[in-house]
Amino acid sequence: MLATILHAARDVRSERVPDPTLVADTDAVVGVVAACVCGSDLWPYRGDPPVDEPRRIGHELVGVVEEVGSAVSTLSVGDFVIAPFLYSDGDCVHCRAGVQTSCTRGGGYGGPDHDGHLVDGAQGERVRVPWADGTLVATPAQPAPSLVPALLSLSDVMGTGHHAALAAGVGPGSPVVVVGDGAVGLCGVLAARRLGASRVVAMSRHEPRQAIARTFGASDVVAERGDEGVAAVHELTDGVGADAVLECVGTGPAMEQAIRVARPGGRVGYVGLPHGVELPILDMFRRNVSVSGGIAPVRAYLPELLTEVWDGRLDPSPVFDLSLPLDRAAEAYAAMDERRAVKTLLTV
Amino acid sequence: MLATILHAARDVRSERVPDPTLVADTDAVVGVVAACVCGSDLWPYRGDPPVDEPRRIGHELVGVVEEVGSAVSTLSVGDFVIAPFLYSDGDCVHCRAGVQTSCTRGGGYGGPDHDGHLVDGAQGERVRVPWADGTLVATPAQPAPSLVPALLSLSDVMGTGHHAALAAGVGPGSPVVVVGDGAVGLCGVLAARRLGASRVVAMSRHEPRQAIARTFGASDVVAERGDEGVAAVHELTDGVGADAVLECVGTGPAMEQAIRVARPGGRVGYVGLPHGVELPILDMFRRNVSVSGGIAPVRAYLPELLTEVWDGRLDPSPVFDLSLPLDRAAEAYAAMDERRAVKTLLTV
Repeated sequence: MLATILHAARDVRSERVPDPTLVADTDAVVGVVAACVCGSDLWPYRGDPPVDEPRRIGHELVGVVEEVGSAVSTLSVGDFVIAPFLYSDGDCVHCRAGVQTSCTRGGGYGGPDHDGHLVDGAQGERVRVPWADGTLVATPAQPAPSLVPALLSLSDVMGTGHHAALAAGVGPGSPVVVVGDGAVGLCGVLAARRLGASRVVAMSRHEPRQAIARTFGASDVVAERGDEGVAAVHELTDGVGADAVLECVGTGPAMEQAIRVARPGGRVGYVGLPHGVELPILDMFRRNVSVSGGIAPVRAYLPELLTEVWDGRLDPSPVFDLSLPLDRAAEAYAAMDERRAVKTLLTV
Repeated sequence: MLATILHAARDVRSERVPDPTLVADTDAVVGVVAACVCGSDLWPYRGDPPVDEPRRIGHELVGVVEEVGSAVSTLSVGDFVIAPFLYSDGDCVHCRAGVQTSCTRGGGYGGPDHDGHLVDGAQGERVRVPWADGTLVATPAQPAPSLVPALLSLSDVMGTGHHAALAAGVGPGSPVVVVGDGAVGLCGVLAARRLGASRVVAMSRHEPRQAIARTFGASDVVAERGDEGVAAVHELTDGVGADAVLECVGTGPAMEQAIRVARPGGRVGYVGLPHGVELPILDMFRRNVSVSGGIAPVRAYLPELLTEVWDGRLDPSPVFDLSLPLDRAAEAYAAMDERRAVKTLLTV
């Protein structure tokens, strides 16, 4: 089958690899219908951390179940499924608490499972998914092709934006600021509106992304950063700052911006893998600004968000502004690396 | 009048100073009945930061209103009042949001107000309190002398422990860990129980303090720290860690301990002024452990907690294990510095 392999910094290739097969009786093999490139894939793509040896990549997929192990009870061959960006057994103490990202037997795509067997990267024609019952969520029926992008967003970015909004304590009436205009930040705008935010300020310097943010319900756009960005947010919030801030980037400057625009007693919800982030504990202490979040347990949110996507009430699909076939994955990465695309969908 | 003055590291003296008078029409002058020494007073007492010149000290007091300015409308001469450890106007956007510690016109005892006039330290016979309406809370009637220590605890430590518990998200059923066995940590135990915690683990190595923690409702005491402390908490929580952790010290090792004993998805509420704290953002991210809290807006909690203290349902008074007259303040500091006392009450 065809799969995407990261060979070195900025060297991604679509190559032939062996087809996956069931290993454990709790596995499923999924035939991928659509996958995509994540902002977090760009870190290794850019050589952070350095690529030691060629490896599979990708962690977002939707597809059709092709095989199930004998212990799989909730899925059948032919089901259309959404895979969260990590697999999880659904049964351990952390899964039961809704923190599937800390599953004691869970893990990620593109590397070995707990028994040393490769779990395929999600950017491929087929993927062996461990703990299929705990991981995969089936749609109520076969979806129309036009619904596939929105469903795919539930494997990561929409659930991650929702996690940021929950972590930031967004509720009815809150004024909210979203730092970051990648797919997660844009989904954060949508999530904040969905949770009842009275006003959502998107911090974005890129016009096409500003337009998506407005589509998703942003009431205001602030293009400035640093002191000017803080001043602009204060002007929009009667000099007070925001109740809730979604930090959807993961860099030091983004976190600093997020904390500075929070009002005293405000909350920052963050979901970007931190790179060079040092939290300013004394400023947080003085102003009672809290920092919540982390790697998003999107599996916990999938059933609820799926219902709304299925009904057409929630549509994150505009984050996909480029679609390419799997064999052109290299172009997909380059387009996102160069910020020519917000998020690239890969058709299989 | 007599007041406590910090001259240099470990040099506290009770000395004669001028009586305070009303300055603004929103002021009150309070005749102090009881004050106390705070754990946070020990930082400057120990020379951190260095003492540049002699200065007033103390920020917790209860007393009787002796004079009120012409604009004070909610208090009368003769009222018995509790003063939170910061003054606040009660009317600005932050006060109205319950974050009185960020009051735009507020400040602390022992230094100049916004107009440059000295606000007395709380460890003295009389104190000028700015923004009396916004700051002071009167008791329903004159209290019995036996109730004074519990009332005094509401000026800081009980409200601060309560803030830690709220920030950590303590609710009915939560297993809770409290790091720190000073007066705030002990009040944190009491606050967690009051909010319905199913189990409260007090991390304490000092037997007299362990005994108070048990009086306050601690179900377990862990004397170990570091790896052993983490292991002991995991043993008590089915290997999972605590839903909510109260960090009531403010040092790097205490915060590290707090974050490590939190379960995935857990919350750390912190209230100790951070000294050398670096937050481990990657561990927080991976395990979705949030850090909330800061300087406690005890004014926000005073009416609610006062009702329960007045009724006898809440009694934080056991944190005061030493009582001395104001003219022996030096002994009060030494006793706390040497950990011979949890918290010293100063009678006036």
